[in-house]
Parts: sequence; structure tokens; C-alpha cells
Amino acid sequence: MSGGLFIGRFQPFHLGHLEAVKFILSKEPAVIIAVGSAQYSHTPENPFTAGERVEIIQRTLRGSGIDLTRCSIIPVPDIGEHRLWVSRVISFCPPFKKVYSNNGLVKILFEEAGFDVEPVPFFNRQVYVATEIRKMMATGGGWRTLLHPSAVEYLESIDCERRLAIIMKEAGPDR
Amino acid sequence: MSGGLFIGRFQPFHLGHLEAVKFILSKEPAVIIAVGSAQYSHTPENPFTAGERVEIIQRTLRGSGIDLTRCSIIPVPDIGEHRLWVSRVISFCPPFKKVYSNNGLVKILFEEAGFDVEPVPFFNRQVYVATEIRKMMATGGGWRTLLHPSAVEYLESIDCERRLAIIMKEAGPDR
Amino acid sequence: MSGGLFIGRFQPFHLGHLEAVKFILSKEPAVIIAVGSAQYSHTPENPFTAGERVEIIQRTLRGSGIDLTRCSIIPVPDIGEHRLWVSRVISFCPPFKKVYSNNGLVKILFEEAGFDVEPVPFFNRQVYVATEIRKMMATGGGWRTLLHPSAVEYLESIDCERRLAIIMKEAGPDR
Amino acid sequence: MSGGLFIGRFQPFHLGHLEAVKFILSKEPAVIIAVGSAQYSHTPENPFTAGERVEIIQRTLRGSGIDLTRCSIIPVPDIGEHRLWVSRVISFCPPFKKVYSNNGLVKILFEEAGFDVEPVPFFNRQVYVATEIRKMMATGGGWRTLLHPSAVEYLESIDCERRLAIIMKEAGPDR
Amino acid sequence: MSGGLFIGRFQPFHLGHLEAVKFILSKEPAVIIAVGSAQYSHTPENPFTAGERVEIIQRTLRGSGIDLTRCSIIPVPDIGEHRLWVSRVISFCPPFKKVYSNNGLVKILFEEAGFDVEPVPFFNRQVYVATEIRKMMATGGGWRTLLHPSAVEYLESIDCERRLAIIMKEAGPDR
Amino acid sequence: MSGGLFIGRFQPFHLGHLEAVKFILSKEPAVIIAVGSAQYSHTPENPFTAGERVEIIQRTLRGSGIDLTRCSIIPVPDIGEHRLWVSRVISFCPPFKKVYSNNGLVKILFEEAGFDVEPVPFFNRQVYVATEIRKMMATGGGWRTLLHPSAVEYLESIDCERRLAIIMKEAGPDR
Repeated sequence: MSGGLFIGRFQPFHLGHLEAVKFILSKEPAVIIAVGSAQYSHTPENPFTAGERVEIIQRTLRGSGIDLTRCSIIPVPDIGEHRLWVSRVISFCPPFKKVYSNNGLVKILFEEAGFDVEPVPFFNRQVYVATEIRKMMATGGGWRTLLHPSAVEYLESIDCERRLAIIMKEAGPDR
Repeated sequence: MSGGLFIGRFQPFHLGHLEAVKFILSKEPAVIIAVGSAQYSHTPENPFTAGERVEIIQRTLRGSGIDLTRCSIIPVPDIGEHRLWVSRVISFCPPFKKVYSNNGLVKILFEEAGFDVEPVPFFNRQVYVATEIRKMMATGGGWRTLLHPSAVEYLESIDCERRLAIIMKEAGPDR
Repeated sequence: MSGGLFIGRFQPFHLGHLEAVKFILSKEPAVIIAVGSAQYSHTPENPFTAGERVEIIQRTLRGSGIDLTRCSIIPVPDIGEHRLWVSRVISFCPPFKKVYSNNGLVKILFEEAGFDVEPVPFFNRQVYVATEIRKMMATGGGWRTLLHPSAVEYLESIDCERRLAIIMKEAGPDR
Repeated sequence: MSGGLFIGRFQPFHLGHLEAVKFILSKEPAVIIAVGSAQYSHTPENPFTAGERVEIIQRTLRGSGIDLTRCSIIPVPDIGEHRLWVSRVISFCPPFKKVYSNNGLVKILFEEAGFDVEPVPFFNRQVYVATEIRKMMATGGGWRTLLHPSAVEYLESIDCERRLAIIMKEAGPDR
Repeated sequence: MSGGLFIGRFQPFHLGHLEAVKFILSKEPAVIIAVGSAQYSHTPENPFTAGERVEIIQRTLRGSGIDLTRCSIIPVPDIGEHRLWVSRVISFCPPFKKVYSNNGLVKILFEEAGFDVEPVPFFNRQVYVATEIRKMMATGGGWRTLLHPSAVEYLESIDCERRLAIIMKEAGPDR
Repeated sequence: MSGGLFIGRFQPFHLGHLEAVKFILSKEPAVIIAVGSAQYSHTPENPFTAGERVEIIQRTLRGSGIDLTRCSIIPVPDIGEHRLWVSRVISFCPPFKKVYSNNGLVKILFEEAGFDVEPVPFFNRQVYVATEIRKMMATGGGWRTLLHPSAVEYLESIDCERRLAIIMKEAGPDR
């Protein structure tokens, strides 16, 4: 059941991402949600582990009545070399024929590799922005309405606001 | 929906693995099938990519009437340092409480990290052995009855016998 | 002789760090001084090699009359994945039970792994700041009074001011 | 035929670099042009692959009538640890006795390893600046006169302006 | 001047490799000699550094009257993941259209990526075997007639027999 | 206090190693005991973590009345490229002038880098062999008399016999 690839870091997966998945499922028999930069966590850009992100996505899809049997959620670690990245994605994901992305670099890398790349319509682009959501978490602001309630429930169980507040303030032991 | 972790390389996922998944699902609300050594492929020990292995597992589960919504299939790349491997698995997988494995090293590594590790009953242990299945593929022998028919169909579509025959014969460009 | 862990990059180890070691030794039978980001050197953030940092620490402790037999000085290279970093520290260091740190990320990472984390009292926090010391070295300013005289002597023998001046000015061949 | 080492990222190789090669060939029997940061591409700092950079250099030298048999063009991937970088360069390049560089860090790293390091005279330093050339490419500006015509021809064949415009705008899938 | 790719580890480059290069140059305007596993040295399988191998190849080609301006000699480090290896080769090498190889794995990997792969006729296959040449070096046997005299001269200057004798006997510090 | 370098994997540190340290301390003001292959553990060749090995060495030296203030014990992770390994050792260790080793490869690598390398007299070479000690641990045999009693006490506290028995039997999750 070959499908469309939807790739992102999903830090975190919000309702805009959910709309994109619905859009792709309206066009394709299946969707592969590739969770990029999978090895990173506890940084301002990548606060959540791949496993936490998978959990958030599963809860959001399940809670929204999406048919999970049409969705593969696959962590893909960065390779650190853009020219090899498409091969890394292919290596980790079940077969796909088309790529859905609004990112220009994703577009040229996959096009250079011979793939069709289609945009996904933005759902309320000004509101659903992961960068802003991470900042709201760090400061305790109104991020809850931008995610699915079951994702919010999980994020509260791991005390995401405390984690974000800390990692946005300190460079951390690896620096 | 926290579940049990079932980890292996699944080169390839055979009917013995399927029985193990059924066993875990009889005990747990969900199973996380972690596809280890995810970055390797085209070697005698690891002939298939993580993506190909995910595809084989999805087809096998779907073809066997397993409820896919209770299963997460997660590629986990090796870290190359055993002492760090449990953290790598935790980092890539959604939350789990118990580990199912018959491998002694998996057992001590997860036990050192504070996890319960339970064995899975072997299903026809003399017959369902991935190492033997790979050898059979390389020589064209009777591997087809040891995998699910829809996995066999996929493996034939990627000409697995030719690949195995070649990689069992040659060290390859990386050596 | 299990002890307390004191972790930092120590670029360089100054008199504030020395006070922290004394504080830990007043509470614990032994201290493990873990030299983080051990593989890096010759950058603005990490000008000195792990070996040079070990030498500076040994000279400072010896010159201050600290009982060196109660101190382990252990380089710990970064792993690049925060979720695996505590396991890396454990893997490289002799056993420890408690962690001493004022860094929020160190605190949450070790707490998530089940460790007690205690702060160390800052010694003259406005004065003893490694970032400022590195800048002073680059511009020839008054860094000498902030380090132990035997550390200063060693740093002069490797011409630290010239190195800092250069690496603060140029991105270097690796960029 | 031992020669002089000329190391850079050559993103891209421009007429100032060409003059430097001519200068070195006036002093040495041969030149090794080491293409640093070889593994990176499709980023604002490193837009071109090592292979593309080798092609640009070969075309520039050939088009300028330089004796190619006196030139080795060698990609050298970064090691990520400055203290090991000189060994990495030595490991990848044919033997050399002298290093030509205007970069301060290259100078101290090679000097610490016992090499003579000589500066190369800048050719029109205000004009031939790779950073500026990359910006001009991104905005379609006047970069063509700063490179050799046969390099320009190649860069147009791979649509360098589109690539630069995109990668200067977006962080890319690896971030 | 797009050409044919000839890839190997060249440990060391012998007269059989030279004949293969001549064959490719009889069919193509240019040849790219990709020196694989470039980062390794001082092991039984890979005794010589990439730089030493480049030097041996340059001397052999020059000493045989081959037109060096038609040859690119490019070190390519292993990536450790076969599925990504073709992308790595493409990333490091100037453009090529056809691949010449007798290795089955090289053949399937490049064919999967859409390349034509042609065999090279073996020149005295029983005699020119790099594995045997390395063994002869370790025991002081008759390897000299199997390499070009100017390669032999260089290998003697770096005392290859001593190196091979030692590394064939001991596992080394990295094991 | 510059000293002599003594490098090994110390899996585990036995009474033969202790004699070597005593020998070096009879010749040098200080010794740097570099614990190589520091990142590995839980394998047949490298069963113990670097931290465990440091603990064993510290207990052995302390228990033998060695002046610990003359000893630095430094974990050094493998770099995977022999030609870079000496630089890695230098980068991680405090300054040293002479190297003590009986390993041929260590000898040529350090000699190529300009160091004096001296052998250490073997102490009962047939008896004190780490490879044999690991096998004895796996089978419960008489390894205890070959290590210092306080090292034995520690190794029993981490149940080394169980670990060795398991890792000698199974390839582990990383394979």
C-alpha cells in the first residue's frame, strides 16, 4: 500500500500538521509521517525525543478518528550531509512514490532524486507554527489550543513547560 | 496506550516473530516492534533496509488480521556503544513498561536500566531462524513457507534472492 | 570510594571551580571531575583540549593542597544526543551516587535518570566566569588573577593568549 | 613530486583562488588543492558538493592553461575535532612539505604539527570573496565575472542560482 | 568532460588496475578513479592511507605514460551504510555517467540508483590480486613485479614491508 | 609533571599491568594510564565500561600502595582511523614525552609521530593475559588470583561472571 511521504521534525505535531495529514489521506491510499532529526531532543529547536513525538502523533491521529492503519510513523535520524539525506529517508521508510512538502530544500533534494514533490495547503499558517508553540511552552502561554487535547494531556504528563523553560534558558552540557 | 517492547533486527520478519507479536498482544494493550540495526542493509547479516523491514512487518501483520492500531513499528539505529543502547531505544520509541526478549544481552542491558524483561515462547524454534532463512534466500531454497505470503510477495518484487546471492558472495564496496 | 560527580567543560578551570571542588569534598569521600565536550578544542567555546584541561585541573588541585587521591579527573566526549548523555557520563566515569550542578539541563537530564542533583554554592559568581576569562585571554586582559598560579604558568607555556586571539577571530578550517 | 598544500572550502573556487594556485606553482613543483569540509553541501556556507567543487576547480585550471599534471585535487571531509584535523589532511593527501594559507587557525594547527606555513598574496581581496559570491548567486547578482567562464558554464548547468536562493532562505530538513 | 567511474580500495594499485584504467580510457573521454574506504589505514585490509594510495596511483599513471589530465583521483570515505553509499560517491566525485566494476554489490547498488554498470576485463586475474600482494609484502615475498616500478620505489620509501608485517601480526590499539 | 604514557584497553587491568606501571614509575616522574577503546563495553573483547575500568585501576593502585598523585587515568575513545589515533591520544591526555608499549602497531604509529617508544618488561607473560582472564570469567574459572583483591571485590559486586558468560554467548542487540 504505497503512499505519500510527509516529512517534518514535528516539534511538536500540531493541528496544522493534522490538517496536512488529512489532506494527503484524501489524495493517497496511505501516508508515511517521517519524524526527522530523530536523534535530537532537549534542545530549543528539538525539545522532544523521537519517541515522544511518535506518541504525540499517535494520540493526535487516534483522537481525531484518523484510520491509523493507513499511517506509518517513522523516525528518521539526520545524516548531517544533505546530499545523502534523501537516501537516508528512503532507507528508513516503507516505499513511497510522492513527497508532500512546503519546504524549498526538501523540494530540491527530492526533485534532484527524481521524485514528484507537491505542496500541502497551509491550515491557518499564522497560527500553527511550531517555533511559536515551543516559545509559548517555555513561557507558559496559550499553546494548548494549538494541539490536539490528547497530545496536550501527554505533554502535561511529561511536564513539557518545565523542560522548555529550562532548555530555552541554558545551553546545556553538550555545549 | 503504553505497551510491551519487542526488539529485533527482523532480517526478515518471519512467522515465528508473528507468533511472538500475538503472544505479547495477548498480554499487553499494545506492542512496540523496534527494528534494530536500522541503518544497515545489503550485508549478509542485515540484507534489508529498515524501510523494507517495516514494509514486510506491516504486510505480515495486516495479512494476519492483527489490529495494526495496537502496533507501533519503529526503526532504531545502532549507537555502537552497548552501554548507551537502552537510552537510544527509549529515545526512539513511544513509552513502554515491559520488555519481551529471549536474548541474554538485551536482558541484562534492560535489567541494568531497571526494566522487567520477560521471555517470549519460541514458536517452532528449529524452523523459524532468520539466519537460515537468509541462507535459503541466497541459494534459492525453501524460505517462502517460513514467511507470510504477503511478505513473500513483497520480497519477490524486490528480487531478494538475487540480492542475497550477491551479498553473501562479496564483501562489498564498504570493506 | 564512591563520590559526587562534578561536571563541566572547564574552559578553563578557574578559582570558582576550585571552590566548588572543595565544597563537594567537604560533603563526599571523593569527587569525580568530568571534563565534558572532551573531543573539542581550538574553538571560541572550547579552546583547550581535554588533555590540556586535565593538566590545568591537576596543577590547580595540586597547587591548592587538595588531596588528589580523592579526585578522579575524567574526560567525557559529547555524544551529540542529550537523551543519551547521562548514559555516556555513567559509562566513562567510576561509580557515583550524587550529582552536583547549577545547570538546569544537567539537572533535568540526571533527575530523569533517577539521580539526586544538588547545587554548588557560587563563589563570586560575577567574577569567575569562563566565558569572560576566554575573552580576556583573547585580548590580553586580566585573566591571570582568576586562575591558580600554576594553571597560569602552564597556560603561558602553551601561549594561550595567541591561540585565543586567533580562534576568536577566525572560523577555522572546519567551518 | 612533493608539493605545497593549498587548503580551503572553495565554495566556490574563484579567480582569487586561481591566482593563489599560480603563485604556489611558481614556487613548488606541484600543488595539492585540498577541498575541505568535503562532506557538506546544500547549506548557505557550503552550497556545493565536493564533487561539484572538484569539477569547478578542474574546469578553471584547464580553462586557464594550468598544467593539470602538477595539480592534485583532493576532497578532505571534516573530522569535527580541530586537534585531529591536521592528521586527517595528511591521511587524505599525497605527501606535502609546505602549507600555504592566510587563515590563522590553519596556521597554528599546522605549525603545532611542525609544518612551515606561508601566506599567499591576496589577489584583489575586496573583490574575490566566496561569502559575497554566494550571496550574489542567491540574489542573481554579478557573480559571473568573479569566476572563470568555464566554471560559470558548469554552475549554470546545475542551476546554482536557484539552489542558493532556496538554501539561503530555508534552514532545511536537517535542522 | 564527463567520464567513467572506476571504484576500488586500491590497497595497493597494481598493474591489473592499470590495465583497467587503460581499458576505460579507451572507451571514455575521462576516468574518475575513486579511492574507497578512504579513511582507513594501518589495518590488514587497508594498510595504506588514502593519500599514500593517491600517490601510488599518480606515480603509476605518470610512469606509464597515461594522460593524467584525463584522470581524476578522488578519495571517498566509507559511510558505513550501503544504501547511502552511492549518494556518497556521487557527492564526492565530479559528474560521471557510467560505472565500471566487476563487483556484484557495486553493480546492484549503482543499478538500483539508475546507473549503467559495465565489467572491466580482468588482466591476469590469478596474478594481480591485492589481497595476495598485501600478504607478500608482510612476508617480504615477490610483490615488486606486480606493481609499477615507481609505485614500488615509493612503497619502499615508506617501508611498506615493515608496516604490513606488523599490522598483519597485531590487532592494534583500536581493537 | 610530564610523564610516560602507558596505553591499553585494560579489559581488565591485571597484576601484569600493575607491574608495568611500577616499572614506568621507576623511570618517570609520572605515568598516564590511557584506557583505550573507552566507548565500548558489554562485548567479548571489551566487557567493561571505561568507568568500570578506571575503578578497577584506581582500586588496584590504591590497594598496592602506589602513589596515586603520580598517576593520571584517562579514558580515550577510539577514533576508528589509525592514522588519526595518535592525535586523539594526545588530545585527551595531559602532556607526555615517552610512550611505553609492547604492541607493534602502537610503536609504529607513535614513532611515525616522532615519539620514543620503549617496551615494558613482561611480568609472567604466560599467566597474565587479559584474553584468557575474560574467558575464565565467562566460565567461572580461576581468574581471581590474577587481579588485585580489591579489583576482584569490585568485579564481584557488579557480577562480572554473569556478564561475561552472557556476552561470550550472544552477539547482542547491536549485531
